[in-house]
Amino acid sequence: MKNIGYLSVDVREGFWKAKQDMLKNTTIDAVYNRFSDTYRFDALKCKPTEQYVPHVFWDSDVAKWIEGACYVLAKENDPELLKKVEAAVDDIIANADENGYFNSHFLVVDQDKRFKIRDKHELYCAGHLIEAAIAHRDATGNDRFLKAMCKYADYIARVFKEEKSAAYITPGHPELELALVRLYIATGERRYYELAEYFVDEHGKYGENLIDATTQKYNQDDMPLRDRETIDGHCVRALYLYSAAADVAYMRNDKELADACKRVFDNLVNKRMYITGASGSTNIGEAYTVDYHLPNRTAYAETCASYALMLFGRRMFNIEQDSKYADAVERAFYNGFLSGVSLDGKAFFYENPLELDPEFNNVYHSTVRKERFPITQRKEVFGCSCCPPNVVRLLASLGDYMYSYNDEVLYVHQYADSAMEFEGMYVEQITEYPKNGNIKLKFDTNGRRLALRIPGWCRGFSIDCDYELVNGYAVISDNCGCVNVELQMPVTPIRANRRVHDNAGRIAFMRGPVVYCAEGVDNGRDVRNIRVDIRSEFEIKESEFLLPTLHTTAYQLPESDELYCVAEDNWTEAPLTLIPYYAFANRGESEMNV
Amino acid sequence: MKNIGYLSVDVREGFWKAKQDMLKNTTIDAVYNRFSDTYRFDALKCKPTEQYVPHVFWDSDVAKWIEGACYVLAKENDPELLKKVEAAVDDIIANADENGYFNSHFLVVDQDKRFKIRDKHELYCAGHLIEAAIAHRDATGNDRFLKAMCKYADYIARVFKEEKSAAYITPGHPELELALVRLYIATGERRYYELAEYFVDEHGKYGENLIDATTQKYNQDDMPLRDRETIDGHCVRALYLYSAAADVAYMRNDKELADACKRVFDNLVNKRMYITGASGSTNIGEAYTVDYHLPNRTAYAETCASYALMLFGRRMFNIEQDSKYADAVERAFYNGFLSGVSLDGKAFFYENPLELDPEFNNVYHSTVRKERFPITQRKEVFGCSCCPPNVVRLLASLGDYMYSYNDEVLYVHQYADSAMEFEGMYVEQITEYPKNGNIKLKFDTNGRRLALRIPGWCRGFSIDCDYELVNGYAVISDNCGCVNVELQMPVTPIRANRRVHDNAGRIAFMRGPVVYCAEGVDNGRDVRNIRVDIRSEFEIKESEFLLPTLHTTAYQLPESDELYCVAEDNWTEAPLTLIPYYAFANRGESEMNV
Repeated sequence: MKNIGYLSVDVREGFWKAKQDMLKNTTIDAVYNRFSDTYRFDALKCKPTEQYVPHVFWDSDVAKWIEGACYVLAKENDPELLKKVEAAVDDIIANADENGYFNSHFLVVDQDKRFKIRDKHELYCAGHLIEAAIAHRDATGNDRFLKAMCKYADYIARVFKEEKSAAYITPGHPELELALVRLYIATGERRYYELAEYFVDEHGKYGENLIDATTQKYNQDDMPLRDRETIDGHCVRALYLYSAAADVAYMRNDKELADACKRVFDNLVNKRMYITGASGSTNIGEAYTVDYHLPNRTAYAETCASYALMLFGRRMFNIEQDSKYADAVERAFYNGFLSGVSLDGKAFFYENPLELDPEFNNVYHSTVRKERFPITQRKEVFGCSCCPPNVVRLLASLGDYMYSYNDEVLYVHQYADSAMEFEGMYVEQITEYPKNGNIKLKFDTNGRRLALRIPGWCRGFSIDCDYELVNGYAVISDNCGCVNVELQMPVTPIRANRRVHDNAGRIAFMRGPVVYCAEGVDNGRDVRNIRVDIRSEFEIKESEFLLPTLHTTAYQLPESDELYCVAEDNWTEAPLTLIPYYAFANRGESEMNV
Repeated sequence: MKNIGYLSVDVREGFWKAKQDMLKNTTIDAVYNRFSDTYRFDALKCKPTEQYVPHVFWDSDVAKWIEGACYVLAKENDPELLKKVEAAVDDIIANADENGYFNSHFLVVDQDKRFKIRDKHELYCAGHLIEAAIAHRDATGNDRFLKAMCKYADYIARVFKEEKSAAYITPGHPELELALVRLYIATGERRYYELAEYFVDEHGKYGENLIDATTQKYNQDDMPLRDRETIDGHCVRALYLYSAAADVAYMRNDKELADACKRVFDNLVNKRMYITGASGSTNIGEAYTVDYHLPNRTAYAETCASYALMLFGRRMFNIEQDSKYADAVERAFYNGFLSGVSLDGKAFFYENPLELDPEFNNVYHSTVRKERFPITQRKEVFGCSCCPPNVVRLLASLGDYMYSYNDEVLYVHQYADSAMEFEGMYVEQITEYPKNGNIKLKFDTNGRRLALRIPGWCRGFSIDCDYELVNGYAVISDNCGCVNVELQMPVTPIRANRRVHDNAGRIAFMRGPVVYCAEGVDNGRDVRNIRVDIRSEFEIKESEFLLPTLHTTAYQLPESDELYCVAEDNWTEAPLTLIPYYAFANRGESEMNV
């Protein structure tokens, strides 16, 4: 099973195109400018200065921006953008040392601490540099950056795998592992795969990071990956690592490791994932907690964790051809990931809560301690700015998530108006999806059968030719060259499992893959108290948010001065407007509830 | 307006008697033994030792125990208990210095820091010692302890008010202020009232404690009390201080200060109080937060804050004869306060949440950081053990909360089977209240009119003689000598104000003054998801909890493996058992929801 990459896919119209245009016209420059303002690009020059101290994860921020920029450059000419990219690449290559080592923090600040402090993101930055170099080669055809990073990877292999001279065994913040697999695929050099394999296999064997059991769990150090039953610890670290583990399990046909990846994936999507595809139930350790603990107001739900679920899900499909993986990818993209960027493309959320009570966010703030709530408005830049460049690279590489193939079948995972051409295979999707569920596909599978994902959210669909449903995919019987799919997309009330106590008495509304929310700006105060009949009919209206808004009549309690009163059936009708969740917090500070 | 004290009231039967018997038979010894085990009594000897370092608030723990023990001793002979009390009193008197100063921490540990560190509970301990000394004099007739504490109080007046030689102006943890008012009443020495007045007036004028604005608010240092609009900062500190402020406002007829006390009280009971009468919405600073922010699972709701609300409410009645004050006292007592002690009288809660999810309490615990949830089971002793001895002194002095009088009216605030005799006034209450609402009162008011509180929770009542309703009290027209009151006590569904977003979609049930809850031990898993019709009829059954349990048919969702599914009307009938909230967590670890 292989993935067809973004290079072979052109997004042409509709929602995805609009988001890619936003990226090209705004986001890519917005992130560049903020990183530039905060010396992140200057730091690549590795010159000590009094203006700034390069932070341990700055290289990863810049690398991810380069990677995203290169995805854009691979598709279209943009000399200005290319210039920015090449300037950064020049600095990285120029300042790598004789071993190929590059890290703007450790080359300048902690010069004697190279490979000595596991928690300082050193190998994490290396992984992102490698990913950037692959994208750079693909965009420019020039492999100088890729070669430099190969040298760096070889150096890492020597220090960590051969000499074992580093002060730790595996990366503290995983990411390098999946980058090494990509480097193998990009170069054909198997040693990079073997290094990825080594890190994946060693991870969790030695209880590194012995501060306490929780800290071990935080870094997935508490047990070998193949023994894991649940998804635990720091969300993004976990999902990056399992993405690499899924690659390794697939590539060496390792059933035990594959089963562990399946268990972890299932635990996430069946017990620890928000309806938005976001995950991470506590800001303490940015971590998973326990099954069914999904608080809405204090959700951690980092944008990067939704991104990382997409990475993980895409890789899991190689192991098991089931639509649940692409379902998770789709859920995460349209909801928990897209909420991470403002509609104007300039500002970002790190945490994506499912409920905002701006008044409550101001409780008892102190310079010493404070109750931690997610912020209510997106920001242009963060000190810890991992999310914005993940927005850049994901939006530029959406094509990566659409197709997989083997000798027998070409799988269509995601729907968007687009054309794909790769090794004699061709698929053209003509659709307004996810505005509606009508998709016309013109295709030539080069002798394979075409398999169309029927999304998990879809309770009724039609396909105008014969097909067989296999693990959530409609496998078309004839290579007929054209098929029309209609995925019914009514507004649907969704209930959480009864064990999710935070959602007791609550329903959410979805339309297609898109989760909706109610904001105070449309619905007045006390949105949390609005009562909606699950049988409500909604009016669907075009909106400023690309996708429609939903309108119905709901119920609200009267305002009152009493704190507690006898409960009566005194609900009165109140109009309810729902907007796509990803569009929340774009019209000023407001209450919000999914 | 004056209060009639516990010395004039004999509780005879029923609920209150049972709780006082529990106190005498178990709690008073349990607290004594745990305090003894932890060297709190030894510390009174003020001998340096290697076994322990006397903590800054140990004296207050012991003083409160002495106070409670003396309330018991005032009513009945108990030579063993008296011996323990006298031993402690002997140590305190023997080790007070030539100025009358006594503090087992500052006399031994921080000898050069006397009156130099505002936040170390020094004057707080002094206040509790004074209260203990008053109780001791009243119980024994011997005033040696009281005299010693008067000397201490005079010393404090010299240092703080006359010489102003201390390093701070007002107590960091208020308590001394209300103790000084009591000392004035107990001795007739007006200078103690004047010192209380001084502290109350100075408090908040100077922005003491300048760490930051929050810390100022924490200690009520951010503004003079008379300017305050809302109740803020540390709950117990706030309520102790406002109790003294209410005394001062009443005693010098200070309308401005009285109005501030009213505003603060109203803000608490109308916007910041749990249905249980508990308050404090965050453990960070053990504090009030903002209006309508009343999270159930993470409620701070300290037992001492419910106790302190009773102190405050009792005093506010002197200022304004309105039943809302005794309503708050009753609500706090039967619910947020009584939940603080186990049914066997041996163990205590510090925090009294309105919802427990034991599984969720185990999320991401780390030795470094943890998500803070209230504990799920009561403990015999805490490091910070302010709550247990407050249980001791409150249960022993319940009579304090029953009656007030002036020349025209004798007010009956609380109902319990009891007899009161004071200055020619006599009231006998024959009742099973709060098991039911039938109360026969035989009375002689010595020329006054009798006023009976009609509780705020009561929606229907009858009185078998003429009366006039004035501010929530039924003022009996004739001094007829006997009256029968029937307060209807159906099970009542209660809804919170729609602005309490944490209670959206939720109702609570009360019967009379008692809040009910559902535990997992009776109702199975996922209590939080049980749905109850507000029109449900309940069967009321005798129970092991002194008050009845409530039984009806409710609804629950089916168990499922799916995390999210289409919401259907697939609720099935499920029996529901409710128990009094104060009885929760007495049958092992269990889910609980009010």
